[in-house]
Amino acid sequence: MALKIACGQMEIVPGRPDLNTKKILQLIGLAQKESVDILVFPELSVPGLLIGDLWEQTAFLKDCETYGQQIIAATQGITVVFGNVATDWKRKNKDGHVRKYNAAFTAQNGKLIPTEQGLDFVAKTSLPAYREFDDPRYFSGQEMLLKDKRISLKNGMGSVAVTVHGNKFKLGIMLCEDGWTENYPLSVPAMLKLGGAELLCNLSSSPFTLHKNSKRHYLFGNQAKELHLPLIYCNQTGIQNTGKNIYTFDGQSCVYGSDGMVKVAAPMFEEKLLTFSWDKETAKIRAYSAEDELITTEDDEIAILYRTIRYGTQNFLKQTGIKRMVIGASGGIDSAVTAALFTDILGPHQVLLVNMPSRYNSELTKNLAQKLAENLGCCYTIVPINDSVSHTVEQLYTPIHNYTTNRDFKVELNGVMYENIQARDRGSRILAGFSAAFKGGISCNANKAEITVGYGTFYGDLTGLFCPLGDLWKHQVYALGRYVNEYVYKRKVIPEPVFQIRPSAELSREQTVGNGGDPLIYEYHDYLLRAFVENWEKASPAEILKHYIDQDLEGFLGCKEGIVAQLFPSHAAFCQDLERWYNLFTGLAVAKRIQAPPVLSLSKRAFGTDYREAQMTTYYSLEYKEMKEKLLVQERLF
Amino acid sequence: MALKIACGQMEIVPGRPDLNTKKILQLIGLAQKESVDILVFPELSVPGLLIGDLWEQTAFLKDCETYGQQIIAATQGITVVFGNVATDWKRKNKDGHVRKYNAAFTAQNGKLIPTEQGLDFVAKTSLPAYREFDDPRYFSGQEMLLKDKRISLKNGMGSVAVTVHGNKFKLGIMLCEDGWTENYPLSVPAMLKLGGAELLCNLSSSPFTLHKNSKRHYLFGNQAKELHLPLIYCNQTGIQNTGKNIYTFDGQSCVYGSDGMVKVAAPMFEEKLLTFSWDKETAKIRAYSAEDELITTEDDEIAILYRTIRYGTQNFLKQTGIKRMVIGASGGIDSAVTAALFTDILGPHQVLLVNMPSRYNSELTKNLAQKLAENLGCCYTIVPINDSVSHTVEQLYTPIHNYTTNRDFKVELNGVMYENIQARDRGSRILAGFSAAFKGGISCNANKAEITVGYGTFYGDLTGLFCPLGDLWKHQVYALGRYVNEYVYKRKVIPEPVFQIRPSAELSREQTVGNGGDPLIYEYHDYLLRAFVENWEKASPAEILKHYIDQDLEGFLGCKEGIVAQLFPSHAAFCQDLERWYNLFTGLAVAKRIQAPPVLSLSKRAFGTDYREAQMTTYYSLEYKEMKEKLLVQERLF
Repeated sequence: MALKIACGQMEIVPGRPDLNTKKILQLIGLAQKESVDILVFPELSVPGLLIGDLWEQTAFLKDCETYGQQIIAATQGITVVFGNVATDWKRKNKDGHVRKYNAAFTAQNGKLIPTEQGLDFVAKTSLPAYREFDDPRYFSGQEMLLKDKRISLKNGMGSVAVTVHGNKFKLGIMLCEDGWTENYPLSVPAMLKLGGAELLCNLSSSPFTLHKNSKRHYLFGNQAKELHLPLIYCNQTGIQNTGKNIYTFDGQSCVYGSDGMVKVAAPMFEEKLLTFSWDKETAKIRAYSAEDELITTEDDEIAILYRTIRYGTQNFLKQTGIKRMVIGASGGIDSAVTAALFTDILGPHQVLLVNMPSRYNSELTKNLAQKLAENLGCCYTIVPINDSVSHTVEQLYTPIHNYTTNRDFKVELNGVMYENIQARDRGSRILAGFSAAFKGGISCNANKAEITVGYGTFYGDLTGLFCPLGDLWKHQVYALGRYVNEYVYKRKVIPEPVFQIRPSAELSREQTVGNGGDPLIYEYHDYLLRAFVENWEKASPAEILKHYIDQDLEGFLGCKEGIVAQLFPSHAAFCQDLERWYNLFTGLAVAKRIQAPPVLSLSKRAFGTDYREAQMTTYYSLEYKEMKEKLLVQERLF
Repeated sequence: MALKIACGQMEIVPGRPDLNTKKILQLIGLAQKESVDILVFPELSVPGLLIGDLWEQTAFLKDCETYGQQIIAATQGITVVFGNVATDWKRKNKDGHVRKYNAAFTAQNGKLIPTEQGLDFVAKTSLPAYREFDDPRYFSGQEMLLKDKRISLKNGMGSVAVTVHGNKFKLGIMLCEDGWTENYPLSVPAMLKLGGAELLCNLSSSPFTLHKNSKRHYLFGNQAKELHLPLIYCNQTGIQNTGKNIYTFDGQSCVYGSDGMVKVAAPMFEEKLLTFSWDKETAKIRAYSAEDELITTEDDEIAILYRTIRYGTQNFLKQTGIKRMVIGASGGIDSAVTAALFTDILGPHQVLLVNMPSRYNSELTKNLAQKLAENLGCCYTIVPINDSVSHTVEQLYTPIHNYTTNRDFKVELNGVMYENIQARDRGSRILAGFSAAFKGGISCNANKAEITVGYGTFYGDLTGLFCPLGDLWKHQVYALGRYVNEYVYKRKVIPEPVFQIRPSAELSREQTVGNGGDPLIYEYHDYLLRAFVENWEKASPAEILKHYIDQDLEGFLGCKEGIVAQLFPSHAAFCQDLERWYNLFTGLAVAKRIQAPPVLSLSKRAFGTDYREAQMTTYYSLEYKEMKEKLLVQERLF
């Protein structure tokens, strides 16, 4: 006899057990109406996953328990598996705080169903401590739980036997990371199989990362195939954050058949009660609705990125209660894409573009900013900053009295100072003023290349509520701009010249459109910097130089061929450029990132909690220094 | 026969194996000259501890290995125990990165001395994952190492047998957290004793926390006493940071005799080769110099705080290469203490105080700022902000064009907006301008009470290089001010009225000195907020309200008796105040902290890496809501 099973792909609000329980109870009610036999929810569906150190607050933990009891009580005629924190008030974690487990509870007919080992819940075994994950900070693992109960590991993994329509079924329950078995000494799914599991359930709370979905299909599909067991992957939707990073949770719950193929799948970023049938005898998984069989193939990368940024941004605005946005519009690509994004989400009346020209801004870019506002139909104003900048400069020349020497002196201003005065005047004086008065958040328009090397001014263009494009390299921002015109607005809201002009901050005579531009040459530096940040074994100057010497740097970085020779007339010039950016990346840029707005995370490595940093002095390895010296001596000789 | 042993209490520069190795080799040379038999260095003395995700960079790890070899090669005639990262290039950590251990190596006569189990090093067993520590993110533990080598735990703890002057001695080696045995299932020191250790060595990298030293004396002293073994505690000096937090390392290395008493101790914050003799037969530990027997008793709390802040600040400035500071001087206590601190460190010529009056600043506070500068002998200037603020307001009234309706409109400004315009004008326009032109860092003068509830303006008074007083409650800032006058300058550099006036931001007519002040009543809120942040089980509104109802809130919070009744005329007023600050603490203040400057950490819980936070919506527990409702119904009835 086939069972009717469902995944409760739901939006989880971190830190709000009240709201999450309400949603869970609604979905249970819906499932009961649809005669679902077994309903699975995501990991930590009651408390949420990324709640910082709120895990230490007793009142919060107690409420999670209480709400968990409400869920258990609501399981008349249905079996429900849900994620919650399990607190053992009598024991302690290693840090001395009360013992907590990231747990999955199973309930039926108003009662808890213990595991086959007699435990109230299954605890997460593999506690990730990488990227944004800090599980060992808060949770003890399944191994610790079993040790305390003197249950041997072999007998103790998460098997729960449930009786449905008079028949017994063994569920093999695991939590998120338990399924990512690549580097853990223990394979939880294999142990579940050994324990007699007939159906694997992975309760997840897995943030979106570009290309993660295909990796998961590969890994989880193989798991199901090798173990000859169907595998339910139940993920959440919504957003959660770690302070410095905002994460989207893409849902995309699905069921792998015992042949490793995806049989049923829920959509990206949508709540859904995904129902399907499972026949234990034939091991068949079947969708009830044809649309659930439509497995979303990995869309075009840029399409996925836009969808994710839009979803994350929209939800972050909703969470923070922000209904309007203020954007500094320079006529460049970053602010143009940002403006188009917010207009798409909030509507044109809710978006204010402010162009703040100084004497260095060209007519070209000023017109482009205006044209953009016109195309989007949003609110627009021009506030020149010349007078204010002059006034500031004048005031900075106010005599300073030295009370030790009893003499007056004045400071001197140079070009860079003058540039930064302009940037801060725009960010902290005008945009922040409009932010309050227009009741909108400021968008920080920085991209990842700028953030990597700190090409941005403290309290200037680094102001903002958050940074929606901060995890995109400049070439991705351009591609997103093209996508926005072609697929979102289906017309050229971002004027064509925005794609053509050389990016420039327009803060000095030397640095204007048509007359010099950004010091970053994105066709090369985008890729160099990406290797520093995103490469699995973070590329160091030594590796970069080695590839340069071996003449395969462009292949290693993934940038266009010939560009290295084109940019650098000599080895010395190459090294100078490399060190310039590595010094900034590991130096001043770190200080800037510490005070930068949160970044919407998209890539496999976003600055913030995902990429932890200390302010240090820059270090070059022995190998780099040797290679460089040899190379430069050679160059000088020949 | 007694051995001559030494602790190499050294300053470690995080991420600089080159500099650290140089220092280690110098100390080895010195110890060789002094005929030291065994020399112990701190944990991770080659790479440093708080280096963020630099642990993932291969070039860095390779260099640590190379420098480790240099240290081993330099051990002619001496036994050296030092901390370094041990990389197993063939294995992986659970996250898939190369396997790393936080390790202690022992070397003698140019050769590595393996452990009694034949391993090249002792690995740290207890990997802390709380406060600022992220050990499991980077390191595998001793248990994993032994498992892979198929060595049972019982036989495998860190015993290293060294032969000195023809006699064998068994050192029991552990790393930092291994000695903090309170909540770990395994007691490393007890295991070492079981393994036959005759002398315990704890290699530490332990940041300063107020009152930690007495706790350590209690814990480590008992350990030595119970195991009847002398215990060497070798800690580092210097500063390290996690981005958001700057930590001082206080040194204070010492040796506990087998009676649990401290026999020899190195000073706080100073590098020192601390030598002593150990007689295995009599178990006696003896200092060579009488001054090393002077155990620093816990000084006055404020004296210790000043010393720590001074050391941390001085070193952070040194590391970042900043020789001058710019301070907004309002005439209030926070900026006065900050100015005195930086003048003490940098000298008066290097400190610029800027008073930036608007129409709301009183003659009283303006005069106090000037008097402070005069007393300190530092540089001083007055830059009024009236004109600029008026200009900004005028510019914000620029018509805005709505390109959908094709109509113009204007924003409206209210009082709070006007207040924040002033704050940002000071921070981002004037101070940031002077910061560049005077070539000095901006000091953020915020205290912990302000940071807790976000009482400060984005890009206004929250600008700065770092926040030296950010981990002090307002009453501690006052006490520090008194201390500075009495003990540092020995004269009233901070004028007496600064201590007497009610704190006020002076940003509006309602909020001037003598006419209202800060909304925080520090005599109460300092302590309420401290309970939210620093209590071991973070106090929630439910616990606060329970204590209020039980009429022991003042005792629970540690504030002065009678103040609660004095401040709150009704239960409703009490709850309203509680919720006002809890809403801010868990709401907007989190957003501000994400972009706030780094905080110098002093307490057992500083905002930042030590206290991780997500932006969420505020949650009140069921118990709180019930208690409150009952209380307010009661109040309405009677």
